[in-house]
Amino acid sequence: MDLKQIAKETAKVLASYLTYQAVRTVMAQLSETNPPLAIWLNGFSSTGKIQDGEEYLRELLQVEQDLAFRIMTVREHLVEEVANSLPDLVRTGIREANMEYRRQHLERMTHASLPDSASHPELEISSEPNLDNRSS
Amino acid sequence: MDLKQIAKETAKVLASYLTYQAVRTVMAQLSETNPPLAIWLNGFSSTGKIQDGEEYLRELLQVEQDLAFRIMTVREHLVEEVANSLPDLVRTGIREANMEYRRQHLERMTHASLPDSASHPELEISSEPNLDNRSS
Repeated sequence: MDLKQIAKETAKVLASYLTYQAVRTVMAQLSETNPPLAIWLNGFSSTGKIQDGEEYLRELLQVEQDLAFRIMTVREHLVEEVANSLPDLVRTGIREANMEYRRQHLERMTHASLPDSASHPELEISSEPNLDNRSS
Repeated sequence: MDLKQIAKETAKVLASYLTYQAVRTVMAQLSETNPPLAIWLNGFSSTGKIQDGEEYLRELLQVEQDLAFRIMTVREHLVEEVANSLPDLVRTGIREANMEYRRQHLERMTHASLPDSASHPELEISSEPNLDNRSS
């Protein structure tokens, strides 16, 4: 497991995703101020090329330079605002999801090994008087 | 721009991506220790469902529980190891890419506004003797 390489690849995916969020933000702004350009940007962005944020920006720079610069500015702002909160958010997210799957697994195992008491708790209760009768 | 929502969505994408990296890691380990299971996991993972890491794990828990727990353990390890380095990596990545696009843009603008001196630098040099002659 090459942790350094994984961190690098993860940061690249993250940069692409923040570029996508910047595109969404600019698109929402344009739909208020310049609807035809919003429609154009939507068309340009919906051919799957946004999967790679850098390739997307390089292509956009060739055809709509001002828009590309605007998206670059927004993604720079986004990364300043959200980057520091990500480690805690993602650590907590993964830990809590894992804990939940393990809890569900334990619950299923408990049900499987104690089918009667788990699915018919009333049987346990009704057996108590018998025990009392036997000891008296 | 709802920064809190964007941070939350970004952390979710990040968790999915680290789950994918955990699957890759487990697959590489299995290809050494249990090739048939590696092939099975590859088949299970290649139908696009790995796009959503939580949905992927929930489905895997139904059919190959031990593998799912192993992937959960690996992704928890991965997030501990790489999460803290991500803010700097992604900030630097975006800043440097933006700077490079702006530099290239300035370069193109300079070439466009000074076509002769930029594409034929020898013309500038050859004009210097004339200035000297004029001042002498």
